[in-house]
Amino acid sequence: MSTSAQIGVTGLAVMGRNLARNFARNGYTVAVHNRTPARTRALVEEFGNEGDFIAAETAKEFVAALERPRRLVIMVKAGEPTDAVIQEFAPLLEPGDMIIDGGNAHFADTRRRERELREQGIHFVGMGVSGGEEGALNGPSIMPGGPKESYDSLGPMLEKVSAKAADGAPCVTHVGPDGAGHFVKMVHNGIEYADMQLIGEAYQLLRDVAGYEPAQIAEIFRTWNTGRLDSYLIEITAEVLSHVDAATGRPFVDVVVDQAEQKGTGRWTVQIALDLGVPVSGIAEAVFARSLSGHAALRDASRGLAGPKASPLSESEAAAFADRVEQALYASKIVSYTQGFHEIDAARAEYDWDIDLGEVASIWRGGCIIRAAFLDRIRAAYDARADLPSLLADETFVQEIAEAQDDWREVLIAATRQGVPTPGFAAALAYYDALRAERLPAALTQGQRDFFGAHTYRRTDREGSFHTLWGGDRSEVSA
Amino acid sequence: MSTSAQIGVTGLAVMGRNLARNFARNGYTVAVHNRTPARTRALVEEFGNEGDFIAAETAKEFVAALERPRRLVIMVKAGEPTDAVIQEFAPLLEPGDMIIDGGNAHFADTRRRERELREQGIHFVGMGVSGGEEGALNGPSIMPGGPKESYDSLGPMLEKVSAKAADGAPCVTHVGPDGAGHFVKMVHNGIEYADMQLIGEAYQLLRDVAGYEPAQIAEIFRTWNTGRLDSYLIEITAEVLSHVDAATGRPFVDVVVDQAEQKGTGRWTVQIALDLGVPVSGIAEAVFARSLSGHAALRDASRGLAGPKASPLSESEAAAFADRVEQALYASKIVSYTQGFHEIDAARAEYDWDIDLGEVASIWRGGCIIRAAFLDRIRAAYDARADLPSLLADETFVQEIAEAQDDWREVLIAATRQGVPTPGFAAALAYYDALRAERLPAALTQGQRDFFGAHTYRRTDREGSFHTLWGGDRSEVSA
Repeated sequence: MSTSAQIGVTGLAVMGRNLARNFARNGYTVAVHNRTPARTRALVEEFGNEGDFIAAETAKEFVAALERPRRLVIMVKAGEPTDAVIQEFAPLLEPGDMIIDGGNAHFADTRRRERELREQGIHFVGMGVSGGEEGALNGPSIMPGGPKESYDSLGPMLEKVSAKAADGAPCVTHVGPDGAGHFVKMVHNGIEYADMQLIGEAYQLLRDVAGYEPAQIAEIFRTWNTGRLDSYLIEITAEVLSHVDAATGRPFVDVVVDQAEQKGTGRWTVQIALDLGVPVSGIAEAVFARSLSGHAALRDASRGLAGPKASPLSESEAAAFADRVEQALYASKIVSYTQGFHEIDAARAEYDWDIDLGEVASIWRGGCIIRAAFLDRIRAAYDARADLPSLLADETFVQEIAEAQDDWREVLIAATRQGVPTPGFAAALAYYDALRAERLPAALTQGQRDFFGAHTYRRTDREGSFHTLWGGDRSEVSA
Repeated sequence: MSTSAQIGVTGLAVMGRNLARNFARNGYTVAVHNRTPARTRALVEEFGNEGDFIAAETAKEFVAALERPRRLVIMVKAGEPTDAVIQEFAPLLEPGDMIIDGGNAHFADTRRRERELREQGIHFVGMGVSGGEEGALNGPSIMPGGPKESYDSLGPMLEKVSAKAADGAPCVTHVGPDGAGHFVKMVHNGIEYADMQLIGEAYQLLRDVAGYEPAQIAEIFRTWNTGRLDSYLIEITAEVLSHVDAATGRPFVDVVVDQAEQKGTGRWTVQIALDLGVPVSGIAEAVFARSLSGHAALRDASRGLAGPKASPLSESEAAAFADRVEQALYASKIVSYTQGFHEIDAARAEYDWDIDLGEVASIWRGGCIIRAAFLDRIRAAYDARADLPSLLADETFVQEIAEAQDDWREVLIAATRQGVPTPGFAAALAYYDALRAERLPAALTQGQRDFFGAHTYRRTDREGSFHTLWGGDRSEVSA
């Protein structure tokens, strides 16, 4: 058994297997290990010709096969399985060695694990990996957190196996300490939920209000994909919409059960935003839309509810409407990303992470599901001004949304009038209008809270906290 | 020291003090205790004439003063302080004694505490108490969970001190086992957030679109309060809006800083709904609206964003618009309560709680912040059909919302066109339109997920899970 492996991967389900192959294809010697050794053997048998693998049957063999400092990537299920694997390997490691968790861990777990392993001198790197099976094999977007020094030795390898943006830049960076990598990966997924929901709403509007068939809508998405909406998700939307079901000859999208599933990171994104006090209404509506779609009995019980039926537009009106939908989709997308980056920014402050938001946009430009030309603009916004308080404070976005907003409103008006549900578009516009509002009804809320709970309020004209004696003579007292 | 106290209260901040006085005023002998005995003495000194108090200086004295089975109410801060008090008292208690937590505990903590104390034979009752200081003193809405048998001895006392609904029914019931009481209290608060947000949006629309002054809007709310919106929150809204600031002579609502605060139960309601897979978009938008309002720097940076300025209506148009706003508010309120009750229903299934949803509506009719005539209708809906899948399946609500929906849409259209943020109204309508939709774009979402992640989909025309070979010949395989 040689000790020449530069990196090891344990957990050889499809993601782990593909990541191991990716390292091997890039010239690294990769130690591979799995709880059931049959899978290890199968990998080497099937893909051994792609590069240098060292198959390890036991944990000890696996660790022994790794160069110092050891770089041990674990690709197992998030939660208890991850803890179990860490507990198995940590005692076999030495100070300076690295455990790299490439699963979809909750960032709070990553923070705990990093803290615990730090005491043993082990560098724990929580690493978000996006791009699914194909990304893992051919180049994912990689979001490693953990100790900065771990990146000195790990970074060059990750840069080699990662996706490359159109300008050639590797889609990986040291995101920040401890859980920062998994946090950013989580928000990535939350934004992905929002992107998909907005695309879904655009599709539904083109279908019900404009009256287009799926194949026609596919063409519209193809056209959009040549403009500022150029992105992987728009591209595959066109593919899905143009696909015809062989069994029935009907549009594929019409034979799929309209109940969306989810795996949890979108939900986490919203839950943690609530803890951080960040409004992520667009992401929340996307998560809720998926759960609502799955409540089949509730939907069956509700189909008789009164409401308008959409009446399709004429051909020329439809084309104009499609252009408006593009504006609405783009404006709503700006808002989703504004909310997502706000959440990362809030976490940066809360956990004292030195995350470079422009870098985050940059490493999402390739390999991952939300890869898009749009991310170049976000990167440019942060490059122009690192302390940008919000994407909606960037001049380019301000300008674009200003141009889009009339159409955005008209699309929402049509949806409202014709009864097409557009929770994502609507939440985005409400966020935009609330942000720019001179005054919000929050003042009334504070008045109510002071009335029923003596929660006090502040005044616009002087410092301090005040309470009105609502049950008495309604004079004001300092609180 | 006598041992004749039927109930004891430890933790004598304003809520605990008022609850103790409430018991004493109702003829019970109340043992009172506080970590710092000065507060105990102050209570007896100031309010001793209201009934029979036994002041206990130490934990031992306190426990010794209580009749068996002991009923010990703890009114301390949620979280660690509650655990600390439980750890102090539990060893002094005997099997069959009760610890009743009247704080705003997270229901998961309540479940843990109940489980731990059950092992010692102690009955732990997590008890939601709503109505603030005044309710605690004069009759709150009380939501006790915990073991059913605890209610045999505790229930009659709670029924005496609780609020009474207009029909004389006490606003308390055994909500369900372990954490059910605190859960229902949490959702109560979430609904309260939504109610307040919807009222805030109605106010802003009447102000900006209809062009009314706060005093005029107060009159409109007073009128609404005589109809189906009759409720405590509508009543106090009128009070707050008609209040004039003495210092400036301006409407009070205009001198209050428009940044709303929150204490956490609204946030929990949304976070747990996400775990349960229940769409509570109206409550979420209410929580987000509060947090957005508090991001002062972000709002300052966004005031220049492009958008329409609302141009007030003529006098006659304004009156008609106000009627429409009432319809929109009422319809959105139905949706909020639908979502909140859905969350309780989902928890009932998840935790195997035997919660009677009609009873929940019933005990919210008095004492608490969301008390309203409306709750009689909800109770009637569940009385008519205990297994109602959703409030939106109740004939009366279906009918009312059918009548409201044209106006609801028109109000949203006006808000969208004039740039008045209405996240709550919009989320409610989107939920309504999604529920009644024949098809949702969730089918497209499933198609996308299958494309990029091989997550599979179901078909409308046959059982099973399927995957399309998107990267290959696009044939379909069973998954």
